[in-house]
Amino acid sequence: MNDPARAAANDIAVGRMLASEPQLVGIEPAVDVVPGMTPQTILTSGAPLEWSAYTGGQRRAVLFGAVYEGLARDIDEADRLIRDGKIHVRSTQDHSCIGSVAGIFSASMPVVIVEDTAHGHKAFCSLYEGPSRLKLNYGAYDDNVRDALNWLRDSLAPLLSAAIEISGPIPLKPLMARGLRMGDELHSRNTAATILFAREINKSLLELYAGGRQTEVLAAFDFLYENEYSFLRLGMAAAKVMADAAHGVDGSSLVTAMAISCQDFAIRVSGLGDTWFRGPHPTLEGRFFDGFTDEDTEWIGGESCVTEVVGLGGFAQVCAPTLQAYQGGNYATMQRTNDEMYRICVRENDQFLLPPFGFRGAPTGIDIFKVLDTGITPAIDGGLAGKDGGQIGAGILRPPIDCFAKAAAAHEEMKSTP
Amino acid sequence: MNDPARAAANDIAVGRMLASEPQLVGIEPAVDVVPGMTPQTILTSGAPLEWSAYTGGQRRAVLFGAVYEGLARDIDEADRLIRDGKIHVRSTQDHSCIGSVAGIFSASMPVVIVEDTAHGHKAFCSLYEGPSRLKLNYGAYDDNVRDALNWLRDSLAPLLSAAIEISGPIPLKPLMARGLRMGDELHSRNTAATILFAREINKSLLELYAGGRQTEVLAAFDFLYENEYSFLRLGMAAAKVMADAAHGVDGSSLVTAMAISCQDFAIRVSGLGDTWFRGPHPTLEGRFFDGFTDEDTEWIGGESCVTEVVGLGGFAQVCAPTLQAYQGGNYATMQRTNDEMYRICVRENDQFLLPPFGFRGAPTGIDIFKVLDTGITPAIDGGLAGKDGGQIGAGILRPPIDCFAKAAAAHEEMKSTP
Repeated sequence: MNDPARAAANDIAVGRMLASEPQLVGIEPAVDVVPGMTPQTILTSGAPLEWSAYTGGQRRAVLFGAVYEGLARDIDEADRLIRDGKIHVRSTQDHSCIGSVAGIFSASMPVVIVEDTAHGHKAFCSLYEGPSRLKLNYGAYDDNVRDALNWLRDSLAPLLSAAIEISGPIPLKPLMARGLRMGDELHSRNTAATILFAREINKSLLELYAGGRQTEVLAAFDFLYENEYSFLRLGMAAAKVMADAAHGVDGSSLVTAMAISCQDFAIRVSGLGDTWFRGPHPTLEGRFFDGFTDEDTEWIGGESCVTEVVGLGGFAQVCAPTLQAYQGGNYATMQRTNDEMYRICVRENDQFLLPPFGFRGAPTGIDIFKVLDTGITPAIDGGLAGKDGGQIGAGILRPPIDCFAKAAAAHEEMKSTP
Repeated sequence: MNDPARAAANDIAVGRMLASEPQLVGIEPAVDVVPGMTPQTILTSGAPLEWSAYTGGQRRAVLFGAVYEGLARDIDEADRLIRDGKIHVRSTQDHSCIGSVAGIFSASMPVVIVEDTAHGHKAFCSLYEGPSRLKLNYGAYDDNVRDALNWLRDSLAPLLSAAIEISGPIPLKPLMARGLRMGDELHSRNTAATILFAREINKSLLELYAGGRQTEVLAAFDFLYENEYSFLRLGMAAAKVMADAAHGVDGSSLVTAMAISCQDFAIRVSGLGDTWFRGPHPTLEGRFFDGFTDEDTEWIGGESCVTEVVGLGGFAQVCAPTLQAYQGGNYATMQRTNDEMYRICVRENDQFLLPPFGFRGAPTGIDIFKVLDTGITPAIDGGLAGKDGGQIGAGILRPPIDCFAKAAAAHEEMKSTP
């Protein structure tokens, strides 16, 4: 399985990933900045599917997104308009977007804009919806969900946008690296990074407050104070530009995307173009919130596992011992799980360092052939969605090896094709 | 060594320690709030000594304190005035104060006021002097040191005082408990707690900014942003009220104070009144900043080890793996060192939880008899002072067993005395 050309290609790919410099450059309505976005587009997480393949909570989330955007009066009309081609349902992945859980983006929704200033490309992510268990990105919709989305659009996003204009672009890697030193692993725990981010825009908010936007600023403080998961959206967009930087290196077997839809778990590989390699959903070791069980779970999409693609989340969970209380497990297991990830990665991250491992760099750059050799698939920290909509727990997800095997076969085939 | 009466007394003492509710209630000039403080008083760290016993850096620090306060033109005059009884040198410990390193308090210096709202008593600590390696509390003095102290007195302290007046008293235990979940052990690492504290007064500062104190507020933000050790002074005062709450329980063998002077390491014990039990200085396993060695160290006082008295610092260092970079060592050793502290403590803290130990409570309440039985003395995280003044390193300090043996002998004697 040792292939010098592949190793060299992976070295280039992971080098690009590590050289990436994600900066938050703005927050704008999706339709104004997302490539290919139209007023009639709804984006959703996961490798692309036909509309008929979207089922359950993810299908509902898309329909609710259309209703929220005012494209349809109700979900039946939305469904009709989608089937008639009047509303376009697309994969986030085809529009440089990255979706949390169902990952619904409609035209007017604000998105964070993260630019890789080392390579020039961008990625976009929607904002965290807030503390309610019911959220559109978990497939739920009611007046509260709508009001929360409206407040993000009309108050928080314009204010943060103004704050970023004052402060200038905010480099995200330093905040992420620091988060790892302060108990985050930047997938299921983002407490420190959220607080560090709020601190970065503090002076700008001060200026806006003194300039007459008192109510908005106080509400923004409260939101960031209470919603310590908020940074995840910035971290996901940052991870996406890092992963995208590594994509498209001829001969490389590095994983550059992992994405979940209601139908599958899928990966993309640096040297294998735009093809998605699909397999069954991950297995789960998790902890359910009170009143819920395994039987209540439903796959409704999710792309926050892009953090694992760049050496965070399950690849840095040794930094976040508090996750025991959120997703179950114990610290010894977390250390073992994290340590095992070195066996499927090509590099130790020189910027994301893990203090409990003596500042060893996080395992970074998943090689599909290492996954096949070891039989170890990526450990993904994640939230669990319920059949009724809403989050019902959290845990560690393990994708089956199928999609990695398919990708490896394609890689071998490509090599043998002149 | 099992003594039911002593165990019952220790149970009461540690119960009071854990029931303590330290809140930051204000910041005022020492002379206005510290009991027994006069315009001519200089307080310094450690069990009380005669003036002639203060040597080296600690003596210099006291003299510089008198010069800073304007009580003398230079250190020679200050020395003369002290010997003439015109300037009074006292132990912080006799004035409800707690000193960082040499711990110099003069009349005009601002102190944080921490009240135990469960029991009613208070403790006081000076403010962190800032980023310079040279600080008065490390025995150094020049124009920069003076200017930094003036700025604390004239700008930062009045502003923070006003902020606390707006916000109301700030409970410190929740910030400390959270700090432990975010990589602090609250002696040598206070990064998270400092940031969490700044967040608590953020809205008050906003109001003061809008009210016209822009320059001060921006400078305060910068100070708290750059000086992530700042919280230590609040943590020390909080730990002191907790430790003091446990003091004075008849028959208890719990350690309620540990303090270092240029001459000795000394402890007080709950059931043994105001007596200090003195022994030789701690031994040291540390890391020196570039250019310094073991030979440059000098003992100039220090009472931040009050944090260890209440289950923090070395008793919670498993929470702060980043300290490997600051004080040397490795994480496995830190875990072992921390774990060993359970053998000399009477309780697992129900509020200071250690996530890497599966949220087990921090070992809390050092029993002198457990120290004697095991031969294990407290592990203390600390900064190291240099002969030239200034900090020259950091490490783990281990007091010899002598003072614990003396205290145990006194405890036995008291028991046999009707």
